[in-house]
Order: sequence, then structure tokens, then C-alpha cells
Amino acid sequence: MSGQPDLRALRAADFPVLLPMTTRWADNDVFGHLNNAVYYVLFDSAINRWVGQATGTDPAGLPAMGLVAESGCTYFGELRYPQDVRVGLSVVRVGTSSVTYRTALFAQDDDVPAAVGRWVHVYVDRDSRRPVPVPDVLRAALAQLQGG
Amino acid sequence: MSGQPDLRALRAADFPVLLPMTTRWADNDVFGHLNNAVYYVLFDSAINRWVGQATGTDPAGLPAMGLVAESGCTYFGELRYPQDVRVGLSVVRVGTSSVTYRTALFAQDDDVPAAVGRWVHVYVDRDSRRPVPVPDVLRAALAQLQGG
Amino acid sequence: MSGQPDLRALRAADFPVLLPMTTRWADNDVFGHLNNAVYYVLFDSAINRWVGQATGTDPAGLPAMGLVAESGCTYFGELRYPQDVRVGLSVVRVGTSSVTYRTALFAQDDDVPAAVGRWVHVYVDRDSRRPVPVPDVLRAALAQLQGG
Amino acid sequence: MSGQPDLRALRAADFPVLLPMTTRWADNDVFGHLNNAVYYVLFDSAINRWVGQATGTDPAGLPAMGLVAESGCTYFGELRYPQDVRVGLSVVRVGTSSVTYRTALFAQDDDVPAAVGRWVHVYVDRDSRRPVPVPDVLRAALAQLQGG
Repeated sequence: MSGQPDLRALRAADFPVLLPMTTRWADNDVFGHLNNAVYYVLFDSAINRWVGQATGTDPAGLPAMGLVAESGCTYFGELRYPQDVRVGLSVVRVGTSSVTYRTALFAQDDDVPAAVGRWVHVYVDRDSRRPVPVPDVLRAALAQLQGG
Repeated sequence: MSGQPDLRALRAADFPVLLPMTTRWADNDVFGHLNNAVYYVLFDSAINRWVGQATGTDPAGLPAMGLVAESGCTYFGELRYPQDVRVGLSVVRVGTSSVTYRTALFAQDDDVPAAVGRWVHVYVDRDSRRPVPVPDVLRAALAQLQGG
Repeated sequence: MSGQPDLRALRAADFPVLLPMTTRWADNDVFGHLNNAVYYVLFDSAINRWVGQATGTDPAGLPAMGLVAESGCTYFGELRYPQDVRVGLSVVRVGTSSVTYRTALFAQDDDVPAAVGRWVHVYVDRDSRRPVPVPDVLRAALAQLQGG
Repeated sequence: MSGQPDLRALRAADFPVLLPMTTRWADNDVFGHLNNAVYYVLFDSAINRWVGQATGTDPAGLPAMGLVAESGCTYFGELRYPQDVRVGLSVVRVGTSSVTYRTALFAQDDDVPAAVGRWVHVYVDRDSRRPVPVPDVLRAALAQLQGG
């Protein structure tokens, strides 16, 4: 993991795309803050929303299917419903069949991330589930997420 | 249920409060539309968000605790992530210890409800879990939801 | 609603099928009990599990698609993770295109329901989304849920 | 990451504790398989269930609060409701304030993991949210999860 930036030092401006999302009563757990798994639900929703907008195609309708091969999250702070949040997206690497995103979760009015995530989509054929190249329309769009 | 309006005839304008909410990838089930339970998650989130804003108090911090005693939903149409939605709120009845809301779910740009719900909160003492009067600060605020 | 039984008087033995389910940390909300929408998630899971087992067919693979047209729940008691629970199922009515279930949620070792629900599936054609007859294989199986 | 085992080579027998869990209709996403975030919900539920059983104390009642500092998951296979699953737990490291678990998700009748996860709990003081030592009762119990 050489070259890994200091995740705590990332700021909202380091993410080319920031998507606003609302939180829900059921997101808060007994501790009164967003449950840790909700962060992944929000990352997933942001990535797929961006993929849909940037390619003009519903992710479920792309010629190949993006399966999550790996995901991870480092938590720095707490968020709580009814706070609105923003999900930051950037791309770390585009391989033959895979796309690695960096994600982050920000409180609406905070540039310091509450969490930073990592997300690897591998594109597979719908039937054989074997890796196939990242769809061209997505590969072209990913340029918008670079420089994060 | 005499006096029950024709639920299908309700429109966005019949709800004094409309709260925008984002949907999530995980909300869609195998049928490619919002899972039926997600409607309740959104109703719950809207009611508690409104209660918090209108009373200036986090619902978990009110002097009494609002437990859901009954809920129900009639589904008219399908919604699907990544559509944004709006939750409509009005109040049907304020009793000694209970508040009955009417709720509805609208696609962002549609005045015809995808679903209409009913929601009864009963206020109870945190320790004894016995009914207590609806908190005064909430009772006053509920006037804003009338006439729906 | 004439003929409606006293829901509080129902017991586990009134349900021909009882399906065990595990609860999850994220099911508990700030109040430390199962969030109200989780009850619907469990009802839905039990109905579809039963439909799958009784018909030998994945519900998503039936010739028609069962959409939820109405649902409702009356809450009598609280449940909390890590309690295991049981979902009770019985059938109230089988119409031309619809099936109305009665559902209930029980703590593992309790015969008194924490909640009783009502659930209406309407069968529709996958393409036109217009009502079609309840699939024969399901209609036959529903006899197992009668007498509840 | 030296010393990291080959995650794909792990088997059910490598986990000192295996907890059975049921899946839910709403767990399946549009692709007809368990949504990736559900894996974290199941890991979380298993860890907290085990902590509660092994210490005899509800995790929310421990003298310190276990916050998730990091989590991660590598996905090898698909799971789908209505499959029952098992969550495997072992402990990788116990530090002054933190516990690192290895988790895995298995289909009921499969010894090959569908996914392997990593989970770091940091214990903090409820008020100050500053790190405190892992509670003694938990530290003692964690011996049961070693050798995985």
C-alpha cells in the first residue's frame, strides 16, 4: 500500500464528485449514530448513481455486471440521522476488468471526512460470471473521477 | 372507517408538509423496485424529522417516547432507486396520548401518490412504558399538519 | 371489519406455520428495540420463504409476480436483538388475484404476539403489471395455511 | 500485510465460532443475491451476539463502548435469500484498546467462504469518546476465539 495517502488528511475538495444523501431514522443504532454498515449502503448508492448518470445507463443494464470484489472503510467520526450527508467519489485505479474507487462520507457542512472507503468493482459476464473488460462507456466516464 | 377519503384521489397538495428523500441501491429488491418495507422506513424518517424540526427537539429527547402502535400502507405504484422521492405528511387525529398521521410517498416529479400510509404514535413514559399525554410542544406543532 | 378477531387474543398455536428468524444488531434503533419497519421485513421474508417451500418454486420464478398491495401491523410488545423470533403465518382470504395473509411476530419462547400483521399480495403479469389469477401451485398450497 | 493468510484457503473449521443466521427477502438486490452491505450487517450481528454471550453482558451495557474503527470484506462467492448462512469468527489481534476480528460468511452447507472480513473495534469511554482499555471480561473471553 505504498503511495497510500493519509486518509485523515483528505478533504471534500479532494473528491471530484460529491453526492448529497438523506439519512433515515432506522440508520441510527442503539448508540444513536449511523450504523457502520450504512456507510457501505451509502457508498454503493453513490457509486451506482454516478455510474448511471455518467454513462446514461442504469448499472443493472450495462453490458457487464459490476460485482463488488472488495470493500473497506476507515471510520473517523460519527454521523447521526437526521443529518444530511454527502458521499465523495474518486477513482484510484482502472484495470482491465476492475475499477477501484475511493469513497468518503461527509456531514453536510463539514469538509473533514467522517469516513473514507475503498471499493473494487469487477465486471463480469452476466451468465458465466467470468471477468470481462470494464464497459467502454464507463471507462470513458471514469476520467471525470480522476485527479481526486 | 366512515369518513375515510378515497386514498387514490389524494395529491401532493393535500399534504401540508412534503419532505424530499434520496433512495438507495439496496432499497430495490429482486423486482427492481423499492421494497415494500422501505416505504415504512421513509415514513418513519419523515415523521421523526418533522417532529424534530417542528418541536426543536430530537424525538429521542422528548419528555415522552413515541412508540409505533399501528402502521399501514396501501401501494398504488412502483418507485425505484435512483429516483428521488418526497414523503407527504398530514395529521388525521390527535388524541390524549396518540397521534395519527397520514403519510404518502411521491416520486419527485409526480403529484399522484405511489403509496398512502397510516401511522399511529402512542406516547409512553420511558420507564413504565405506560401511556402519557402527547407532549405539549408536539401538540402545538401538529396544527401545522392539519387541513391535509 | 366485522368478523375481525381480537388480535391480542391470538396465540402461536393459531398460526399453522411458524418460521424461526434471527435478528440483527442493526435492527435495534435508538430506543434499543426492533425498529417498526423490521417487522415488515420479517413478515415479507417469512411469506416468501413459505411460498418458495410450499410451491417448490422461488417466488421470483412463479408465472405471475406477487406485488404487495396493502400491509399493516399492530404492535403489542417490544422485541430486541439478539432475541430470536418466530413469524407466524395464516391465510385470511384467497381471491381471484389476491392472497390476504395474517402474520404475527413472536419472541422465541413466547406464545403471545409482539405484533400482528396483515398482508395482501396481488398477482400481476410481469410485463403488463395487470392482475392475473393466483398461480395454481400457490392456490393449492395455501390450504396448508388455513384454519389459523 | 506480511503474515496475511491466503483468505481463499480458509475453511469453516478455521473459525472457533460459527453462528447461524437467517437471510431476508430484502437482503437480495436487483442482481438476486445478498447485497454487499448485508455482509457487514451479519458480521456486526455475529460479533455483538458473541460478545454478549461470552461476556454475559449486552454489548451496549459494557463499561466501555466498542466503536468500529475499520472494516473490510473480500467477496469470493454469491449468497442468496432464502439460503441460511453461518458467520465465522476468530480473533486476529487484541491490543490495549482494540480488538481485530476475522469474520467469514458461509452458506449453511458449504465450508468454503463466500466472503472473508476484517473488523476492528476500538473501545472508548461513553462520554469522552477517548480510547480506554478493552474491558477485562471481554479480554478474557477472547481467548475462545484464538487459534482460528
